[in-house]
Formats: sequence, structure tokens, C-alpha cells
Amino acid sequence: MDVQPPQVLKTPLQVPRKTLMGPGPSNCSPRVMNAIGQPILGHMHPEIFKIMDDIKEGIRYVFQTANPLTLVVSTSGHGGMEAVLCNLLEPGDTALIAINGIWGQRAVSMATRYGARVVTLETEVGNNFTLAQIENAVHKHKPTLLFVTQGESSSGVYQNVEGIGDICHRYGCLLAVDTVASLGGVPLFVDRWGIDAVYTGSQKVLGAPAGLAPISFSPRAQERIFARKTPVKVLYWDMTVLGDYWDCFGRSRVYHHTIASQLLYGLREGLALVVEEGLENVIQRHQDCAQRFYQGLDKLGLQLFVEDEYKRLPTVTSITVPDWVDWRDVVAYAMKNHFVEISGGLGPTVNRVFRVGLMGYNATQDNVDLVLRVLGEALHYAQGVQRSKL
Amino acid sequence: MDVQPPQVLKTPLQVPRKTLMGPGPSNCSPRVMNAIGQPILGHMHPEIFKIMDDIKEGIRYVFQTANPLTLVVSTSGHGGMEAVLCNLLEPGDTALIAINGIWGQRAVSMATRYGARVVTLETEVGNNFTLAQIENAVHKHKPTLLFVTQGESSSGVYQNVEGIGDICHRYGCLLAVDTVASLGGVPLFVDRWGIDAVYTGSQKVLGAPAGLAPISFSPRAQERIFARKTPVKVLYWDMTVLGDYWDCFGRSRVYHHTIASQLLYGLREGLALVVEEGLENVIQRHQDCAQRFYQGLDKLGLQLFVEDEYKRLPTVTSITVPDWVDWRDVVAYAMKNHFVEISGGLGPTVNRVFRVGLMGYNATQDNVDLVLRVLGEALHYAQGVQRSKL
Repeated sequence: MDVQPPQVLKTPLQVPRKTLMGPGPSNCSPRVMNAIGQPILGHMHPEIFKIMDDIKEGIRYVFQTANPLTLVVSTSGHGGMEAVLCNLLEPGDTALIAINGIWGQRAVSMATRYGARVVTLETEVGNNFTLAQIENAVHKHKPTLLFVTQGESSSGVYQNVEGIGDICHRYGCLLAVDTVASLGGVPLFVDRWGIDAVYTGSQKVLGAPAGLAPISFSPRAQERIFARKTPVKVLYWDMTVLGDYWDCFGRSRVYHHTIASQLLYGLREGLALVVEEGLENVIQRHQDCAQRFYQGLDKLGLQLFVEDEYKRLPTVTSITVPDWVDWRDVVAYAMKNHFVEISGGLGPTVNRVFRVGLMGYNATQDNVDLVLRVLGEALHYAQGVQRSKL
Repeated sequence: MDVQPPQVLKTPLQVPRKTLMGPGPSNCSPRVMNAIGQPILGHMHPEIFKIMDDIKEGIRYVFQTANPLTLVVSTSGHGGMEAVLCNLLEPGDTALIAINGIWGQRAVSMATRYGARVVTLETEVGNNFTLAQIENAVHKHKPTLLFVTQGESSSGVYQNVEGIGDICHRYGCLLAVDTVASLGGVPLFVDRWGIDAVYTGSQKVLGAPAGLAPISFSPRAQERIFARKTPVKVLYWDMTVLGDYWDCFGRSRVYHHTIASQLLYGLREGLALVVEEGLENVIQRHQDCAQRFYQGLDKLGLQLFVEDEYKRLPTVTSITVPDWVDWRDVVAYAMKNHFVEISGGLGPTVNRVFRVGLMGYNATQDNVDLVLRVLGEALHYAQGVQRSKL
């Protein structure tokens, strides 16, 4: 052998148990964790097809859609975004992308790579868009696709989506919506609101491990995909073939890739828990937790980064870092002393905010109280660190 | 709600326990199964970075390479192929693809989508390529990239790779090798043999669940990627940014996507088991199992699809379907009565072969004997079915 066996792999894996109160992943329920340890199944076994069918039903429920082309992409949430864009864009298309944080920026990078002409609608970080702003931009640019983010997790901003579909369709434009951080924390009606493409991640409100991206396309979007002049660039995400593996077109199942059975088990059980609780109740629970959290933050003398309550995302709360602490001290203290994850900012909000996620299995009043207690303690500690530097 | 909660998700998950003796996925060891149930970690936690570093060392060992750009792509093996091609090809490049089964066919589809001019070197299914054939094709087409499959799992064919790197480099061509089905069953020396890009899957000899693709690029390939005139089409697989998340360039870690911690745990422990046993011993074990299996098949009066022993892949054995049975009866009998998976063909070998995988945790003499016993019984049954139709 030219390369010797590495010493680092001669000790067994060790993983600490943390309370993940950042913007995702969140902890999973015992039922989900138990599911992912179930025996492995092959990618063409009837039992896995049944599980995939169950998952499709669950996704249609949480997305509130009857779309036949509803399935799961074997990638992270990032891959869900990329799968939507590579299926709906071809060279020469115009993509209008609403940017108020990191996800819009990413969508620009992806859409450009797939050869689209990209135009943007931008607002400052911490803000969202009005229907009038969106209509003006669609009217001006005549895009083939509009991309908006319902939950901008980098800033904790919620974007109202109701009404955007009607605007888009008046101009012959498709509407794509990122719901990675928002799904299950706020209402979403894919069919009623005329959304043409939507995706989310498995590791947030759905309470499953990371690694899968539920996705759905309207019949209008499906038609666009099948009428493409050029093939979808990425075979891994090409809905015209992946849709057959997921039995979305009523044709026969065709092998596409070796799916991760363990992740499917987790997602299936995460969806089953949402069904058991009821989607409305899940949403209400997240909103109740957010309210309790806002009240606690107020008592701690902290300011919310998003001032207008109707612009706030209940699942991910952004908190302005007070000028009397270094945010790194706060985050490090919480992790070191309590194994509680509180996150800093991301992209445009780095150094400016803390981000706390209250999602899925972790969205409980006990966890709200826990994170408030830890945050208060950590701020006190961090203030001391700053004072000692003076 | 417009869409009601689906009934199918009101019952809990049920998963049967099977012995997966097809061409992958294989069963995982108890150590690996235990690992994937460990607590979830965030994608930017120090502990996950340590696990990723351990995995990089393990991958360098199994690939026998010192390549700095060695990491894991969060996709199935299919995604590994696509990640290699989208990083190394740009519009106008010429890709030479060796086709002797389904994987070469797939590579053609992908390379075409990424804008390359694709030329092929083809041989009949069940055969492989000589160095002379390869040199002639490289000389003729002057490609920028040659793609070969070391283990063609659709036909059970092994391709010698030693010597191909030298040929490629004489003509200024990079060499990409698919080792999804072969790694750990036959020797592979990425550096010694001058391989520029290589990938495998987690779910075969490495004995981890499906969903991850270990990948490595030579310094020569890395240079090519950084010198591209156009961005890599797929941001999810763009090595210039994903390489930073995996700390391959000695710069700081940058968030790229939310990695599936559970799958990393499984792969880390799968690699640790290879380290514990020793790579040479792992390879020997697979070759011993294959020999025992060939002898048993001979006793059953079955013909191997690949006649020349030096062209056979020890990890996946293809067996000619005798004309006195319907292969579906055999496969169904084994599953129904013994929960043992024996596969049919794939792509060009459909209806022509059975495929039996002896990989990773499943590559034991006991499993060889089990699959032989079940196969014999199933053939007897299927022969009866055929007779009853006469």
C-alpha cells in the first residue's frame, strides 16, 4: 500500500448530544431516530416504493397540492433550489429573482450557471416585498420565472406569497417558492396560491434528518419541463426521468439512482407525525412558540432584527446583537455550558444577529424557556468578557 | 385545508429485514447501523468537521491517494459521476467515454448535457478494453477527458485501469474512473496509476448506507477546474466552493449546504472497519468469496456471463439465465421464501443475467453458501413453473 491506514479511524465515532436551536437542522423525535435505524431496503423493492408513495401523499398534504409531479430529491435543501431552477430554466430564459438575503443571492448564482438572463428585485436585509413591488418588476422584466423565498432564514423574514401566483400568471410567468425554513411554521397553499414550483428541506419543521428535499411542480410547470428545447442540464435532477422513478406520470418505475432508504424512513415518519398532529396545529404550535419567545426576548431587553411583526418568520427568529457583547462569546458559552446551539448570522447578517430556530420536534414551550434562560446567562457572561477587556 | 391528511400516514413505518445480495445497496454492520442513529449535528459544528476530516483520511486510504481535493459529495453514486463530469468538462471539450454497459451510457448523457463533444469507445456487453484499444482511441480523438468504469455492475465486468493514466497523460488528457461497484473488491492505486478523478458509492464495499459519494481529484484535475473559462454548471457540486466546506484548500471553511450528519456517521464507521481489517485483507476477502461462489455456481450447472476469469468483477457476479427458467420466478422465489435479494440484469443485460453482489459486510463465506442454497432451490422451483406451463 502506498497510503497507510489512518490513525484517526482507529478510534470509534463519538457524537455529543446537543439541543439544536439554530436555523436547522433541528433534533428529530425518537420515532424518527428509531426509523432511520430500520433495515436497509434496495431502491427497486416494492416496500420502498410503498414508502415513497406514502411520502408523496405526505408532501402533497404539507404543500397543500394535488400536483402529480410531487417527489423527493436526494439532496439537501440547496439541491431542491437547484433542481427547481435547472428544470425550469434554459438558455435565453429570463429569471426574476427577489433578493432579501442569502437564498436569493444563491438563486442568482444558480440561474446564471444554467444560462438564464437574470434580473433581480432587491430590498434591504430584514425587509420583504409588497405585491405592488412584485407586480411592477414582473411587468417590467417579463420573466419566464419568478423566484421568491417564503422564509429568508438568514434574516428571519417572512414573505407573503398569496397573490403572487395571480400576478405571475397574468404575465405568463411561472412562480417558484423556497419554503425550506418556512414550511409548517406559516400557512402555505400551493394550489390555491398558484405556486408552480416549491421545495423544502427535511431537517426543519418536518423533523427528519438533513439530506432530502421534497419538491413539487404544478401541471403548468410540468408542461414547461416536457416542452424544453434543451435537455435539463443535470440528469440527477431531471424531472422527466426522476419523475418516473417516483411514479409521477403513471408510467412504469425506472431505475434512476440508489436512494437513501434510511433518510426516506425518517422523512416518512416526520410526515406521519405532522399528519397525526394536524398541519393547522403544527403551524399554530410554531406561532405560539414564537410569541412566547418574543415576550421572553423583550424581558431580556433584546431587540428583534425584524421590527414589523407581520414580516417575522416564526420558525427562525433573528435578534439584533447588542453592542455590549461579542456574539461569538454568547454562542460559544451556550454551546460549551449547555450544549445548546444558538447561531450567529449568515451571509449579509453575519456579526449583526443571533438566529434561534424553533422548529419541528424542538418547537416546544420548554425549549423556548430553555433557550431564553441560556441566552440570558450567555449574554451576562459575554458582557463580563467585554467589560474585562476595557 | 384543501388537501386532507392522508390515511397512509396514519400507520407506523414497517420495514422487513432482508439479506441484500444484489449489486447494492448491501446490508450494513451493526456498528454502522448504530452510528447512523447517533444524535444529529449541525453542518458547521467542530465535531462534524472532525468527522469529515476522519472521512477524508479514510477515503485517501481506500483510493490510495494523497490528493488534497478529496471529499464526499452529498448524493448517490450517480451524483459522483455527474460531479466529476460537470467539474472537468466545459462546452467545447471533447470527452472520450468507454462504453461496455449502463454506466458508460449514463456518462454520455451527462457529458452531452454539460456541453462536451462526446466520442465513444465501445465493446460488447460482457467484455472490457485492452490498453491498445484505449491508446488508439485517445490518439484518434485527442480528448480532454477519458472516462472508464472499473467495475461495470450491469454486466459484472472488471476493467484493468493500470497503464491508462500514462496513455492519457501522454496526450494531455485527464483520466476519470468510476469505482462505485469495484472499490475494495479489486486493487486501486489512484496516485500510482495516474487517475485524475475517481468516485465511489457509500453503500457497497464501504458498508455504509446509500446517499454519499466519496470523490477525489488529482492536483492536475484541480488545476483544470480552477482554470475553467466558464463556471461549473452545478453549484451543489462545484469543487471550487464545496472544496472549501471540506477544507481541501487550506482556506477557511465556508457554509455550502446542510450535510446529512447521519450518513457521514455511517460512512465514517464503514471506513473505520476497512482500516481495522486492512484494505489488502478486504480485497482478499472479496476475491475469496467470489472464488467460492464461482465453484458453487459450477456445481449448480450455471454459466458465468463473463467467460474470462480476469475480466470478472469479484463484487458483482453476473450469471447467464438458463433457458429453462424465467428469471423473474427465481428472483421472486428467493425474496418471498428467504428474504434474500438476487437481482436481474440492468440496462443491456435485462432478461439475460442474474446479478449477485458479495460486498462489504455481506461478503462472507456464510453468505456465499446461503445465496447458493437459495439460488439452487429457486431454480428448481422456477423450472417446475416452466414445466407446468408446457
